[in-house]
Amino acid sequence: MNDVLAVDRIAIVGLGLIGGSIALGLARAGFAGECVGAVVNADERERALSCGLVDHVEIGAARAATNADVVIVAVPLGQAESVFSEIADVIGPQSIVTDVGSAKADVMANAQNGLGAAYSRFVPGHPIAGTEHSGPEAGFAELFDGRRVVLTPDDQADAGATAFVSGLWQALGAHVTQLSAATHDRLLAATSHLPHALAFTLVDALATGDDADTVFDYAGGGFADLTRIAASDPAVWRDIFAANRNAVVAALDDYIGALGETRRAIANDDAPAVFERIQRAQTARSRLTLQKL
Amino acid sequence: MNDVLAVDRIAIVGLGLIGGSIALGLARAGFAGECVGAVVNADERERALSCGLVDHVEIGAARAATNADVVIVAVPLGQAESVFSEIADVIGPQSIVTDVGSAKADVMANAQNGLGAAYSRFVPGHPIAGTEHSGPEAGFAELFDGRRVVLTPDDQADAGATAFVSGLWQALGAHVTQLSAATHDRLLAATSHLPHALAFTLVDALATGDDADTVFDYAGGGFADLTRIAASDPAVWRDIFAANRNAVVAALDDYIGALGETRRAIANDDAPAVFERIQRAQTARSRLTLQKL
Repeated sequence: MNDVLAVDRIAIVGLGLIGGSIALGLARAGFAGECVGAVVNADERERALSCGLVDHVEIGAARAATNADVVIVAVPLGQAESVFSEIADVIGPQSIVTDVGSAKADVMANAQNGLGAAYSRFVPGHPIAGTEHSGPEAGFAELFDGRRVVLTPDDQADAGATAFVSGLWQALGAHVTQLSAATHDRLLAATSHLPHALAFTLVDALATGDDADTVFDYAGGGFADLTRIAASDPAVWRDIFAANRNAVVAALDDYIGALGETRRAIANDDAPAVFERIQRAQTARSRLTLQKL
Repeated sequence: MNDVLAVDRIAIVGLGLIGGSIALGLARAGFAGECVGAVVNADERERALSCGLVDHVEIGAARAATNADVVIVAVPLGQAESVFSEIADVIGPQSIVTDVGSAKADVMANAQNGLGAAYSRFVPGHPIAGTEHSGPEAGFAELFDGRRVVLTPDDQADAGATAFVSGLWQALGAHVTQLSAATHDRLLAATSHLPHALAFTLVDALATGDDADTVFDYAGGGFADLTRIAASDPAVWRDIFAANRNAVVAALDDYIGALGETRRAIANDDAPAVFERIQRAQTARSRLTLQKL
């Protein structure tokens, strides 16, 4: 039996898209212990309960974390450090803490500050899975099926805690990989944070530009696909950009440079250069389709 | 009965995604006349015939256009002028010519040069519909269902020809709008050409960057959606960027400016400014989802 399914109590702090999907995924996996959620106010509690995500919902992380074998922190990154501080005094000496944040070095520093001695049982995690929807209504049990989860434990991390969290994600249907936090943050800046910045900027620029009244009437399927992630939660993404600032700015600088080259090739009517750039992109992107990205 | 379905012979020059889909859509609409395709070589002819797109396929536009009531030019923009020249001598005094190019001012100049006196019966058109796939195998009859088609006739255009082409697109399931070529080219630069440039540049930059070997392993659904159009046909897109160069460069300049502001807000850790930009984008994009973009 998977270790995860044998524990008595799992606390999930934050019941948005990711936290809610973890709750539903644990139920699907046959977890028979107690699954308790934590939210910040009564309205959120009602919404989470009416979605049937968990057995019960506490207001505040400390009450949920008390007596929990595992605490899964699934709040926007800007709230993580205060959650770690809240739960530090109530978790037991064997309790494992993990998170789902999209930027790892920053949240690990927050965990070190907030959890103190319990930091060795903190396992930093990031499921590379999501949708543009948010809130308790957005969760679904299949979100992690076949998706990659990256764990970024440092040399202080307890090996048993890391193995446990790895098993948790496998029970939810995911594949688990380990990377250093720095490598994770650099790669995810390129594949996720930069693309979100591009999509947010595109939609905002058109929505506030001279043609704002009509321009979206002439948008097709390509625009819809490209900008789908621009509907993502603003607080979550503000926090991700702040938490991974250096890597995101570096990725943006690289990209702005590359886009300037694309612009120059088009402006100079350099058809061979334009073709070459597009063809390299087409080849790379078509290969990803074959890999069922 | 729709005028389109009453004509004897329709020629489609170019049987890729768009031309092939028009052929299949005409068959679905019940067109009982002769539908003839034109391609540039024997291999393409075999592929088009084995897809069952049309009754027969000629090599070369002139043979297909001979005796055609309507000639639909569906080739990459860079080939349009030579097609117009090829068909100018063989089309009848009542024949209508239309096209499907993604940039209109340029193709209208090409048509004026190539078609000569027949230019008044040229109806510039652009279906805002497509996929990232290309070639004769990519076509499907439903491609235009519920999609917008923009016609950009100028003041030389024959009103009957414009009405006929409008009916053709309605028979294929599309909604028809008229715009000036300049307005079309500016709006489509923003909603289609710029997004393609962004996606091509992103995939190319990552595929040729330092992390090329591993970076795509950490790409999720948002990246897949955003870059789907980067698998589009290189020759088609080289020609679109060239044909709409001024509007595309202007859109790129606006976007590079906006992206610089996004970068500055993140680099300066200006959380309120970052949040405001994302929230405007989220609001605008969520509204488009409600409109079933």
